[in-house]
Amino acid sequence: MFPKRKNKKINGNSVFKAKVIIKRRKSILDPQGKAAEQGAKLLGFLNIDQVRINKEVEFFVNLSSKEEALKEVTEFSGKLLANPIMEDFEIQLEETDES
Amino acid sequence: MFPKRKNKKINGNSVFKAKVIIKRRKSILDPQGKAAEQGAKLLGFLNIDQVRINKEVEFFVNLSSKEEALKEVTEFSGKLLANPIMEDFEIQLEETDES
Repeated sequence: MFPKRKNKKINGNSVFKAKVIIKRRKSILDPQGKAAEQGAKLLGFLNIDQVRINKEVEFFVNLSSKEEALKEVTEFSGKLLANPIMEDFEIQLEETDES
Repeated sequence: MFPKRKNKKINGNSVFKAKVIIKRRKSILDPQGKAAEQGAKLLGFLNIDQVRINKEVEFFVNLSSKEEALKEVTEFSGKLLANPIMEDFEIQLEETDES
């Protein structure tokens, strides 16, 4: 395991909390969501409809500016988190003191 | 496939858009997040830390009041979406005209 980093300014860097929401494109079937929807019907939840299951990825980024952090997060999301053929992603980024 | 329901008031019901965020408890290891974190290090993203992957479930609920909708969503989340041993969930609910 990596040592738990203290999220304070290190060498003048700031810590940003990033949240990336990854969704399948609307035109692409979401089998996991479909399964949850059918499960709902079976359990008697008849008012629940159009279930989609997305991924929400949370992490900390340690860089000197918000621009740099956004660049890093965008690249990371596009290369590793999302499948560019089937998914779109959306980034939320804010400076934080949280550990 | 279920027919796509028009999200308009039907029989006096309203349509609510629900979003349920499901997170593993902090004390419980998130192997998927750990894998993404190690992938990040391997790809040279050295400033990314403490990755956790949550589920975001989106759906529509068709009921006559927000209270009823919240009750239905809470029960659905607890019974079908989240694992009560390992996960916590958080509900966002709003009335909508969206289709």
